[in-house]
Amino acid sequence: MVALDVLRSLCKRRGFVFQASEIYGGFESTWDFGPLGVELKRRIADAWWRDMVVSREDIVGIDSAILQSPKVWDTSGHVSGFNDPLVDCKTCQGRFRADQLQESACPRKPSKHPGEHGDCDLTEPRQFNMMFKTRVGPVEDSAAIAYLRPETAQGIFTNFLNVQQSMRLKLPFGIAQIGKSFRNEIVTGNFFFRTREFEQMEMEYFCRPEQAADLYGYWIKERLNWYHSIGISPDNLRAEEHAEKDLAHYAAACTDIEYRYPWGWGELEGIANRTDFDLNAHAQATGKKLQWMDPQTNEWITPHVVEPAAGLTRTVLVALMDAYDDETLEDGSERNVLRFHPRIAPVTLAVFPLVKKEGMPEKAREILKRYLDRFPCLYDAGGAIGRRYRRQDEIGTPFCATVDGQTLEDGTVTLRDRDTMKQDRVKIEALGDHIDEASRR
Amino acid sequence: MVALDVLRSLCKRRGFVFQASEIYGGFESTWDFGPLGVELKRRIADAWWRDMVVSREDIVGIDSAILQSPKVWDTSGHVSGFNDPLVDCKTCQGRFRADQLQESACPRKPSKHPGEHGDCDLTEPRQFNMMFKTRVGPVEDSAAIAYLRPETAQGIFTNFLNVQQSMRLKLPFGIAQIGKSFRNEIVTGNFFFRTREFEQMEMEYFCRPEQAADLYGYWIKERLNWYHSIGISPDNLRAEEHAEKDLAHYAAACTDIEYRYPWGWGELEGIANRTDFDLNAHAQATGKKLQWMDPQTNEWITPHVVEPAAGLTRTVLVALMDAYDDETLEDGSERNVLRFHPRIAPVTLAVFPLVKKEGMPEKAREILKRYLDRFPCLYDAGGAIGRRYRRQDEIGTPFCATVDGQTLEDGTVTLRDRDTMKQDRVKIEALGDHIDEASRR
Repeated sequence: MVALDVLRSLCKRRGFVFQASEIYGGFESTWDFGPLGVELKRRIADAWWRDMVVSREDIVGIDSAILQSPKVWDTSGHVSGFNDPLVDCKTCQGRFRADQLQESACPRKPSKHPGEHGDCDLTEPRQFNMMFKTRVGPVEDSAAIAYLRPETAQGIFTNFLNVQQSMRLKLPFGIAQIGKSFRNEIVTGNFFFRTREFEQMEMEYFCRPEQAADLYGYWIKERLNWYHSIGISPDNLRAEEHAEKDLAHYAAACTDIEYRYPWGWGELEGIANRTDFDLNAHAQATGKKLQWMDPQTNEWITPHVVEPAAGLTRTVLVALMDAYDDETLEDGSERNVLRFHPRIAPVTLAVFPLVKKEGMPEKAREILKRYLDRFPCLYDAGGAIGRRYRRQDEIGTPFCATVDGQTLEDGTVTLRDRDTMKQDRVKIEALGDHIDEASRR
Repeated sequence: MVALDVLRSLCKRRGFVFQASEIYGGFESTWDFGPLGVELKRRIADAWWRDMVVSREDIVGIDSAILQSPKVWDTSGHVSGFNDPLVDCKTCQGRFRADQLQESACPRKPSKHPGEHGDCDLTEPRQFNMMFKTRVGPVEDSAAIAYLRPETAQGIFTNFLNVQQSMRLKLPFGIAQIGKSFRNEIVTGNFFFRTREFEQMEMEYFCRPEQAADLYGYWIKERLNWYHSIGISPDNLRAEEHAEKDLAHYAAACTDIEYRYPWGWGELEGIANRTDFDLNAHAQATGKKLQWMDPQTNEWITPHVVEPAAGLTRTVLVALMDAYDDETLEDGSERNVLRFHPRIAPVTLAVFPLVKKEGMPEKAREILKRYLDRFPCLYDAGGAIGRRYRRQDEIGTPFCATVDGQTLEDGTVTLRDRDTMKQDRVKIEALGDHIDEASRR
């Protein structure tokens, strides 16, 4: 399991993730995605969108605003109930979550028995609301209070009727969304595991009440399989059902898909049976009929909802952790490899001219141009081929194609596989299918 | 030119754009993208990303956080200078921008001479800062003030060194970003032309000082061509250079790409020569050397910057306006058409089974599955074929393929073109290339 500081250093050095506002000393555990990080995040988001929206007839997407009417958060329970219990330590001035004391060591004056906070003198917990507040409108005293949304889900519930009607959807159907959410967390950290600004991939699957239990099971399996399909090792994933006493007020059941982080098992995605809690609450608050009429029986149904709610930024972190490898080769040399699945690698194919002459750069660029609409490609002409391979290994490129003298004669390139390090001669026009096939394995 | 209320009604009815928090009466001119709107926005963003990042060796992408250190906005000049002059009307209680009085009619008590505000009794203008403020951290009194970014550009400047070094970039090179920005506008409106939450597509192109003037001209042409490439009519686009007195404090020159909106010409994208203003300012504030060393001469250069800054949400609005058409056919019937370019249409190919039997639905779904990784596809089996064509016309689908009895015999479908309304028999395996070719026209 990769150490966090090793991963963080690799991420900075190779352009995956930088500390936000780093030249100003950073800011409150926020992070920027660099050139390779943004491509990795885009590919993960695209894979989710393809599998959850584009390839399914029963699910459509939306993109709702971050700023919504504050009444939405009154109804959803976030204004009154989205709190964490905050305690201050009078000795060290640290701030902790009262319900997670065992996980956070006192930062200034660590207890001799880590986790016990033996040296700390803690206040009684008080409730701290985690929504960021701002004011909208031109004059501060008369402006409307608004919150940065703490989840994308409510933007789906408030659009239930508009989406169902405009798309003529019949139960069961889903509405999916990818977007940023904000939570003013008391404790952040573990690189970008817990941050105050993050991106979610949420889907609300609306169904008849009697289908909800089965669909809850279906979505747990589907979502686990999806993580396998983007290459996350099954050994590092597990599904853990919440005990009844730990359920949120809106949920009849909830299962976390957990990942084995360097610090132990932790949440990656939550799949909840939210019942009809949200639609009922919004219907009551607005007087709107948030229901669906069965055209066969003319019966009005308030759908129940199963929600697979994933973290996009957190999946990027998991993809990096899971891909990281550090291996000693037969000749005794070491190499760092990110073993990304070809579906999500920021670069799928790197193309090298063996030398910068004899038309090889031109031929390499032709290959790039031919394939860049099919998967992300990169051109690298710098240094010895061996060094170029190592550079691509370190950023997780699964395939490298080298254009050499033979290429100009017979139209084949040397295709080198990142994991096996084996090399094959492949026709240029067969590269795409070869890579697609290897990606399906 | 389409009337705004007609477009707004179409957008709601067919699932492009909904008023945010509509069931609560809406909120402060914010908008949600529905199932077709989100696909249109994704395709425009993907086209920009492909043309500005993926297909170019000299430009890389990033994705920086919305919440950055407040020092970033001190340095950029936004804390002190990102103000609009606000005036109140004592008669009607309206609020206006003092510099745009001629554009905004008094909402409650319109002047007899529109634009003159003859009936209004206006206060002296006062400066109103347009950044949204919030507080980050667990206790309000000790929390750090933070701003929602008013532009994505500063996240590029603060990452200049990290990006240049991790990607080993040589001048000239660009850093591109797509993301949300927030401005507490005094006056919003014209559907989603001016909103407080919006999405930008910005690119900073770093170059030697002596290259900046030429590159400024280059990017104006490139960006105009790009709008043509996604199908925006050249007749509705023009490039307007700012007069020297209207330039922002950081710019040596600026040209707006303007669109002919229903209310007149207005900004769509700005291309600015930002000189070395931003890198210099951040270097001075942080003591970091935000420069690039020419490896040939060992000379340190502070790059100048040309910035094409486009609005993604605004491009979505322009795409909808420009595509809208309402035509009377030869038989006297009317049809609504959105003439989206196939590159950005939310659905490129709709597949219909002629009837819901004899294996036609299965064959139609086979076609869908075959092509959905190549372009967005949709299955529709409801109602007469003519009605299905009209539904697809109204959402801008350029091609409809119908599976009929002959399909099961010879593997061809009827391919119907949205604009010419002509029908051809095309082999299923040739559909993709046929559509790609038509898309290049």
